[in-house]
Amino acid sequence: MVTTTVIEDDKMKTFEELESTVRSYSRGWPTVFEKAKGYKIWDTDGKEYIDFFAGAGALNYGHNDETMQEKMIAYIRDNGIIHSLDMGTTPRKEFLERFKDIILTPRNLDYKVMFPGPTGTNSVESALKIARKVTGRDTVISFTNAFHGMTIGSLSVTANSFKRHGAGVPLHHSVSMPFDDYVEDQDTIAYLERFLEDRGSGVALPAAIILETVQGEGGINAASMEWLKKVDDLCKRWDILLIVDDVQAGCGRTGTFFSFEPAGIDPDIVCLSKSIGGVGLPMALTLIKSEYDQWGPGEHNGTFRGNNLAFIAATEALTNWETDHFSKSIQEKADVLRKGVQAIISKYPELDAHQRGRGLMQGIAIGKDDLTDDICAEAFQRGLIVETSGPNDEVIKFLPPLIIDKEGIEKGLGILDDSIGATLSK
Amino acid sequence: MVTTTVIEDDKMKTFEELESTVRSYSRGWPTVFEKAKGYKIWDTDGKEYIDFFAGAGALNYGHNDETMQEKMIAYIRDNGIIHSLDMGTTPRKEFLERFKDIILTPRNLDYKVMFPGPTGTNSVESALKIARKVTGRDTVISFTNAFHGMTIGSLSVTANSFKRHGAGVPLHHSVSMPFDDYVEDQDTIAYLERFLEDRGSGVALPAAIILETVQGEGGINAASMEWLKKVDDLCKRWDILLIVDDVQAGCGRTGTFFSFEPAGIDPDIVCLSKSIGGVGLPMALTLIKSEYDQWGPGEHNGTFRGNNLAFIAATEALTNWETDHFSKSIQEKADVLRKGVQAIISKYPELDAHQRGRGLMQGIAIGKDDLTDDICAEAFQRGLIVETSGPNDEVIKFLPPLIIDKEGIEKGLGILDDSIGATLSK
Amino acid sequence: MVTTTVIEDDKMKTFEELESTVRSYSRGWPTVFEKAKGYKIWDTDGKEYIDFFAGAGALNYGHNDETMQEKMIAYIRDNGIIHSLDMGTTPRKEFLERFKDIILTPRNLDYKVMFPGPTGTNSVESALKIARKVTGRDTVISFTNAFHGMTIGSLSVTANSFKRHGAGVPLHHSVSMPFDDYVEDQDTIAYLERFLEDRGSGVALPAAIILETVQGEGGINAASMEWLKKVDDLCKRWDILLIVDDVQAGCGRTGTFFSFEPAGIDPDIVCLSKSIGGVGLPMALTLIKSEYDQWGPGEHNGTFRGNNLAFIAATEALTNWETDHFSKSIQEKADVLRKGVQAIISKYPELDAHQRGRGLMQGIAIGKDDLTDDICAEAFQRGLIVETSGPNDEVIKFLPPLIIDKEGIEKGLGILDDSIGATLSK
Amino acid sequence: MVTTTVIEDDKMKTFEELESTVRSYSRGWPTVFEKAKGYKIWDTDGKEYIDFFAGAGALNYGHNDETMQEKMIAYIRDNGIIHSLDMGTTPRKEFLERFKDIILTPRNLDYKVMFPGPTGTNSVESALKIARKVTGRDTVISFTNAFHGMTIGSLSVTANSFKRHGAGVPLHHSVSMPFDDYVEDQDTIAYLERFLEDRGSGVALPAAIILETVQGEGGINAASMEWLKKVDDLCKRWDILLIVDDVQAGCGRTGTFFSFEPAGIDPDIVCLSKSIGGVGLPMALTLIKSEYDQWGPGEHNGTFRGNNLAFIAATEALTNWETDHFSKSIQEKADVLRKGVQAIISKYPELDAHQRGRGLMQGIAIGKDDLTDDICAEAFQRGLIVETSGPNDEVIKFLPPLIIDKEGIEKGLGILDDSIGATLSK
Repeated sequence: MVTTTVIEDDKMKTFEELESTVRSYSRGWPTVFEKAKGYKIWDTDGKEYIDFFAGAGALNYGHNDETMQEKMIAYIRDNGIIHSLDMGTTPRKEFLERFKDIILTPRNLDYKVMFPGPTGTNSVESALKIARKVTGRDTVISFTNAFHGMTIGSLSVTANSFKRHGAGVPLHHSVSMPFDDYVEDQDTIAYLERFLEDRGSGVALPAAIILETVQGEGGINAASMEWLKKVDDLCKRWDILLIVDDVQAGCGRTGTFFSFEPAGIDPDIVCLSKSIGGVGLPMALTLIKSEYDQWGPGEHNGTFRGNNLAFIAATEALTNWETDHFSKSIQEKADVLRKGVQAIISKYPELDAHQRGRGLMQGIAIGKDDLTDDICAEAFQRGLIVETSGPNDEVIKFLPPLIIDKEGIEKGLGILDDSIGATLSK
Repeated sequence: MVTTTVIEDDKMKTFEELESTVRSYSRGWPTVFEKAKGYKIWDTDGKEYIDFFAGAGALNYGHNDETMQEKMIAYIRDNGIIHSLDMGTTPRKEFLERFKDIILTPRNLDYKVMFPGPTGTNSVESALKIARKVTGRDTVISFTNAFHGMTIGSLSVTANSFKRHGAGVPLHHSVSMPFDDYVEDQDTIAYLERFLEDRGSGVALPAAIILETVQGEGGINAASMEWLKKVDDLCKRWDILLIVDDVQAGCGRTGTFFSFEPAGIDPDIVCLSKSIGGVGLPMALTLIKSEYDQWGPGEHNGTFRGNNLAFIAATEALTNWETDHFSKSIQEKADVLRKGVQAIISKYPELDAHQRGRGLMQGIAIGKDDLTDDICAEAFQRGLIVETSGPNDEVIKFLPPLIIDKEGIEKGLGILDDSIGATLSK
Repeated sequence: MVTTTVIEDDKMKTFEELESTVRSYSRGWPTVFEKAKGYKIWDTDGKEYIDFFAGAGALNYGHNDETMQEKMIAYIRDNGIIHSLDMGTTPRKEFLERFKDIILTPRNLDYKVMFPGPTGTNSVESALKIARKVTGRDTVISFTNAFHGMTIGSLSVTANSFKRHGAGVPLHHSVSMPFDDYVEDQDTIAYLERFLEDRGSGVALPAAIILETVQGEGGINAASMEWLKKVDDLCKRWDILLIVDDVQAGCGRTGTFFSFEPAGIDPDIVCLSKSIGGVGLPMALTLIKSEYDQWGPGEHNGTFRGNNLAFIAATEALTNWETDHFSKSIQEKADVLRKGVQAIISKYPELDAHQRGRGLMQGIAIGKDDLTDDICAEAFQRGLIVETSGPNDEVIKFLPPLIIDKEGIEKGLGILDDSIGATLSK
Repeated sequence: MVTTTVIEDDKMKTFEELESTVRSYSRGWPTVFEKAKGYKIWDTDGKEYIDFFAGAGALNYGHNDETMQEKMIAYIRDNGIIHSLDMGTTPRKEFLERFKDIILTPRNLDYKVMFPGPTGTNSVESALKIARKVTGRDTVISFTNAFHGMTIGSLSVTANSFKRHGAGVPLHHSVSMPFDDYVEDQDTIAYLERFLEDRGSGVALPAAIILETVQGEGGINAASMEWLKKVDDLCKRWDILLIVDDVQAGCGRTGTFFSFEPAGIDPDIVCLSKSIGGVGLPMALTLIKSEYDQWGPGEHNGTFRGNNLAFIAATEALTNWETDHFSKSIQEKADVLRKGVQAIISKYPELDAHQRGRGLMQGIAIGKDDLTDDICAEAFQRGLIVETSGPNDEVIKFLPPLIIDKEGIEKGLGILDDSIGATLSK
């Protein structure tokens, strides 16, 4: 063990010495990764890891999909234009047309597509801007344990106090309301509605309500479909725009392309990023109902709105959604994951653990303090990449690539089981 | 002409119908671009364009550099990890080491490298956060006609009123001070210093001063080296952090790797993006002096901090800086550009035009109103991609790829000359 | 009736023509008042009114108390210093000493006395400032339907949307939480506690919680003693300062000098104004626990902190509190008022009315829309001064001078009864 | 000297023990004042002081004017209504009519009169609110070394860093621009105009510009009439409301009723307080041009808007302005004061002193550090009440009652001369 540590220290020297102290994942997983395929990653020592992390949801289609690789290589070889801001290009055109045909039209959705810059936070910032412009209001309601990004606009609707404090300035124009099931035995919709209807509530009529249907960073908290419907209904009654931040829960993560589909709701604005780029290259979209697409040209912009390699991979990724086969397979694997998780919970009652989430976005909330980091460290040693979330890092979070097979899930859960055992027996 | 327009309309239909009205470049250059190499681009009709725009400065090394292409293809083919957040990976390690050896060490710079997310605005947001954290102050001084990005933190130090208004909320914690030469016959440093020294000035001691040495979006306003030195000196005397936003002016654009090198100054924080990625893929860095690198792990994060394809191209791009050959060639070509610009200014006195900028970041400020858009439209028709900047779009802005040759510059200026002639004779 | 209106119009001409449209009370009570004594007022026509308004709580000791009048006249005649900022003066000294002896010492309260400027909003602004200074935090939690004043600091913790909107700027650094009984069947303390304990709630640990024990403008909502105790306990556990705004509910209005006495709680800061001046002259105090009195000299100031005529009357007013006689008499009259109110509620079931408040701070909440203004207008015609409160002006509010007698209360209620009858039969 | 100190300590015990540490004037003038008449004050030891302070400008008409005393006594004795919010009362009506006839009509001013609460800061807060409402803009431009009050709205346009810091929260929606003569050899109007005309200046078109024609707290900085005219002109050209805060410089302080009269300008809003109440009782007005008086009823309010005793004295005070006799006498006495000040400056070249101000609002700026407090302490010992102002308390400020006679001025200056001599010879 001592030897290993020495080797690792040496391996990580470049990062330790040259990189800012802000780096985090290279601390929890102290190795140098080199190759990846499907749901597996290898480091420079050739050690293999099962990936239950998937780039924090950016690799739903797994690492290095063959077809995506081929298409990117052909495009590069052919001197395809790589960077284009929001100029018209062939890959942008094809992506737009395929996105319409495969995603929007079959779901009866009338969204205009905005390329807001290549990151989730850019999409959220643009969503907040257009909601404020369209309504002429400034407040946005967000929810407890929400995470929407790290730039000041997105951070203002993010709930985590460590991240908010990092802003270095007070964050305004947002009101935090209780998410589904936030306070035991309390009806959070009644609470929200009361604040909206009372002219003396101290909360102004907001421009928008922004939410994640399943809160990833906040602890894999999945809102019920009934709660989502009530929020949607309340937005319609009060003429508030509903923004669904589907950056982490979208692109099939919960079993349907958009995470809100089973609720039968109809958000006014949808934020997509992470897996929308297919292969893990930076890309983001903001979908805006036609009637609210009131931007002036260039009113929001950014240098990297035209990442054509990402468009190539993204277009290829959409083929997964041409039939309902992919969606069904996700749901089947979600069941496998859920059963495995429940088995672990039952096996270790001393963890005081609870299942969280839906689809392939699940977690185990551990009631006993300060165990999760150790469990994840043990898992890493044993070849499983898995991280924590929640305000106190109390949830072990499972985001395997959606293309994982049953065997991969079971193997990963097996390692987790061993890691819990090892942690508890320390 | 009618035929052309009809064809174009048809060509742009996808963008017009499916994309948000926020799109801008595809309006000014209504075609579909397909291929690019060096300083040239071709659209789907095979029409060739000279690129005096270079992805708004993201393509300093030109389109599709052969070696970068080869290395990216090899990496993809080899199942290299594409997306990695801030995990350790081989390309990240190599980039860090080469950046230190080629850029930092020879310039005697002791910066820690932060990967803040893949866009310039992410870098600026992170710079503002750390400056506020380190100093415990909240105000940041920025300058008239500054552009630092479109997310709320960066927008708060951006000066343009149209862009600020787009925020939909008031922008705070920033004070706008006059840039070099802002008011005729007035000493802007005296003004700034007076506000700092007087306890009754209404301006609190700031956390930082943020500036571009050459303001790109603001109208190609180049600060004098003397002015930059005075700002740097004033920051040191008042214990204010100096942030240089070198997103557009850095990476060789003005002739040296960092735009501030000729001033002999020593910024505390430097923001890099655009051409740092070499080939035009999204990437950004924040360079922070060791003593100010006081981040907690994960205090600022983002999904796309580990764009490994960009690291591959970025590392290759650094080879240009191993000797001073590249730097000298930029300066020579800058002279060619300057002379050509001056010849045009002399030829058309009715434009009331003035030369702006330095290095290969130059512009012509047109005193006569409302001509610049027409000139750029004429240039596009004739095969030159060139855009405007400045608060009233009054400046024609030249940002050719740094790898352009003398012939390319002259050909581009020839088209511009014709375009001006055509516009004036309307 | 027509004649009357004409005469009134003429009477009000000066106000209509010369005063700003912001004037309000002279609209609801369109006459010119001239004299007042005890609980009665007379206009220039000699018409007598019973005063159930008492200067919105500024005239607890009634109009023109004989002893106060005599002492003020003697002071003026004697060339007593009238205006003194915060210089030492004889009346300021006497007031301080008497306030300590009669109010603070017997209640075991260790408060430093601050004269923050002569209005309630000044007291609240100073309370917020010192709480933020002492804790180094910026957020303040206030409650739904709170009213704390009209200057920007106080307005930021005021809940009414019409008043907030009047600010013309967004109001920050405050979070509105549900007051006691705000949402049917919901436990508002559970919500508040959950938001405080969860690091991912989106609500930062506040500097202070500010509350009125009985919300005057907000609709005569009286918090239960149990709720107040829980808030106090929660403040202590979380190291949050508790500010009680006793501007309207203090000075005996609810039966004890401070409204919070029956709850047995111990606020860190108390705001007093309105009746603290005895006779209705502008005066305010901020009481601050010794350990939190961390002001620098002059860190908060104001021209009218030394209103010596007010100090004279205020000192005289304190004699009412030398024994518990006055307190008991208030509680007896409160019972008379409550019974009278309940009788009216029973008599007019069609009003869907409910009793509100405690002490001599009571109200009738009318469930049927849009009746209260008419009722008050009818009451004015019949010689009763009474106003509405609540977010929709749905509550008729009773604030008679505390020195009123049983006969006065009954006479006033009799007029109200007639006015309701007349309104309902329209 | 020891004895004296002991006695004083004892005298001040009540204030030291019971009052908040925020108290300031009772520190610099450690005695208990008891009586006052005209320009003289006496303490409880019978010691007489000449008053060059006049309640910080609240006692322009001197202490205890005989007629005001008589009218107040008669009113109290007659059971006149003391407190009335904004109900119609006889004294309010008479004040309004006299103010129109004596002040507004002869100056051709069409202002609506608002009673915003009884303090200067209340008037400023109301002025900012209505300016923002009328224009729909939020920024207000204020000037270096401005002082407008201590509540958060007014503090946001106040420049002093100690006072701003006391807010405990960042102050927004304001931009500080350089006052007349702020930076040596720089044209402050050129700066201001450039920031307004440039769409890329970073400063939004403001709702209003607020200024004091002579900055009292800021160091008795008197703007030139030419500068005021330029600001006024610029406001008209850019459709910005001009607010003159005449709280300290108004009511005759500079020789005319409004301080801006000699500039021939026409502010849109004027704030009055301090001496408007005649005898030193709390009172304030906001004067608003008819076209901008767009308040909704009660949109700004406050308990002490109807201080009828103040109205009685205020109405009497207006008689001073029925002819130009009073105005002329102020200007004559201003000459006496100016000559005396200049004589002192000449006598003590080692002070490096400069004359400041105009009318009976003058000061001596002392170039040598840290003398002014000692000089004022010496003056107090010798029977002169005089205070300092300016960001570093570097200015000795003379605000004698306007009713002072030549003898009083000379006597006061004589004491000051002695005090300077004593200080310098220490």
